[in-house]
Amino acid sequence: MSAAYDVENFNRDLVRHGLIIPSSVKGAYGRGAVFEDILRRVDGLLMRVSAAEQPQEMTFPPILPRALIEKLGYLDNFPHLAGSIHSFMGSDSRARELSAMVNAAERWETLLDPTEVMLAPAACYPVYPNFSGLLPQGGRLVTVLGWVFRHEPSDEPTRLLSFRMREFIRAGRAQEVKAWRDDWLERGLQLFRGLGLAAHSDLAADPFFGRPGKMMAAQQLDQRLKFEILVPVISAQQPTAVGSFNWHQEHFSSKFGFRNADESPAHSACMGVGLERATLALIKAHGFDPGQWPGSVRAQLWT
Amino acid sequence: MSAAYDVENFNRDLVRHGLIIPSSVKGAYGRGAVFEDILRRVDGLLMRVSAAEQPQEMTFPPILPRALIEKLGYLDNFPHLAGSIHSFMGSDSRARELSAMVNAAERWETLLDPTEVMLAPAACYPVYPNFSGLLPQGGRLVTVLGWVFRHEPSDEPTRLLSFRMREFIRAGRAQEVKAWRDDWLERGLQLFRGLGLAAHSDLAADPFFGRPGKMMAAQQLDQRLKFEILVPVISAQQPTAVGSFNWHQEHFSSKFGFRNADESPAHSACMGVGLERATLALIKAHGFDPGQWPGSVRAQLWT
Repeated sequence: MSAAYDVENFNRDLVRHGLIIPSSVKGAYGRGAVFEDILRRVDGLLMRVSAAEQPQEMTFPPILPRALIEKLGYLDNFPHLAGSIHSFMGSDSRARELSAMVNAAERWETLLDPTEVMLAPAACYPVYPNFSGLLPQGGRLVTVLGWVFRHEPSDEPTRLLSFRMREFIRAGRAQEVKAWRDDWLERGLQLFRGLGLAAHSDLAADPFFGRPGKMMAAQQLDQRLKFEILVPVISAQQPTAVGSFNWHQEHFSSKFGFRNADESPAHSACMGVGLERATLALIKAHGFDPGQWPGSVRAQLWT
Repeated sequence: MSAAYDVENFNRDLVRHGLIIPSSVKGAYGRGAVFEDILRRVDGLLMRVSAAEQPQEMTFPPILPRALIEKLGYLDNFPHLAGSIHSFMGSDSRARELSAMVNAAERWETLLDPTEVMLAPAACYPVYPNFSGLLPQGGRLVTVLGWVFRHEPSDEPTRLLSFRMREFIRAGRAQEVKAWRDDWLERGLQLFRGLGLAAHSDLAADPFFGRPGKMMAAQQLDQRLKFEILVPVISAQQPTAVGSFNWHQEHFSSKFGFRNADESPAHSACMGVGLERATLALIKAHGFDPGQWPGSVRAQLWT
């Protein structure tokens, strides 16, 4: 691995420049003011690129109903990434017991019960229940900016336990949904290349769990349902996915019962950009001080 | 209860005007574009009011290290509000078992293990570990905007499982920290009254758990450590806290070992505004369409 793709040095330099604020847990660092400014500007650019489509804006908290995760079959495929939220629902005496365990450095979590919520594993999930019944003529387009949780602790600054995705979610006829996905893949490539990043697109699969997951992934690749835009950040050999473009076919419409205006089964697709990853890709490509970035890049972000 | 303070109708009207997006779980609704616009503008106003103080901006994810919550003693006092994050860390065969339990509508969470993170119960918590050793002359001032989790399911739209706080955190000498807290309480009152809200301030206590918690609360009131700004939203008799102003004395400095430049024990204070609550207070006071709000209110937010 060349010095240019040294995780440890990249982390150290990000901290030294005040871009990230270290935490005692992998994948849970804080963001400094300059990092956050870049991230917001990347998001602003995405919103400007999509403005003509007039997406409907929704905002959801980082949690969502446990029943929704169960209904979507997420736990069949990604139990290792899920975040289930548990809280204390006991009596005064049980609370004293819990407190004593914490203070004796014993594991105390056995005294908790599951709440009715989990962490959102994808920013788009809470959107689909809002599509029900007949879609309007031409379908629907929604955008969300949300915090997403994936339990995959890592030293790589691009692999976070909790990060932000800007997503666009399209529902409508199969043809128009697929065309929208393909069009956004092209627009995404142009956008990232226009920011001076060596971006390319590729077929991709979701990180399905375990041995059966390998078959699921092969099937997904075979059906060309998921594409990613990749940029070298940590490694030139293994570039980092900064965007994903997913055609769900009838996966969500069959679960939430939304149909096209002519009663035909609706399709859906989503496209999302990992905002922390896009920010880190820009920093890696152009340096730790955005004031010194190429004028052509700055002109698009600092408008 | 008069019609003006009818929770059910207020919820229904918020949904009807597209301000909130209902969810199947109490306290986990989505926010529509107009709601979000108001919220961002309230935050923008707070940032303008504080600009002269030049707070250092930090951003943290909605999760934080489990060890930090344990160290802060949060579980001694607020176990009922905590959110502990659990994930699956087992084998292929355990994953099949989990999947079968989910699909049989059995409780499957017993197959999970606690992760190294919990949900942030306060936006300021991840800030304090960054204060260590000697503070600079004049102390420090940090601001964060963060998602906060409190497990208190409720039908009241002002009581959410997950919501945003804009917080300012001050560390320094006892006198300057207390004066800063008192000054912000006054500024906060002026700010909310200037937005046409019937705001007043009052001594307050944190919602400590159980019977021993009553004593803790009495002690906190006695020491005048916590003040709130309250505005009628759901009830004229029981106004809603939209801001809190907390003098921690040496609570955090003793845990994280930060001292003043002259080696004396540092104090800290924080002040926070619940952004969803401030937004709902404005909607309740001025109506569901911000386009129709009084010119004096609009002038401050839509600058």
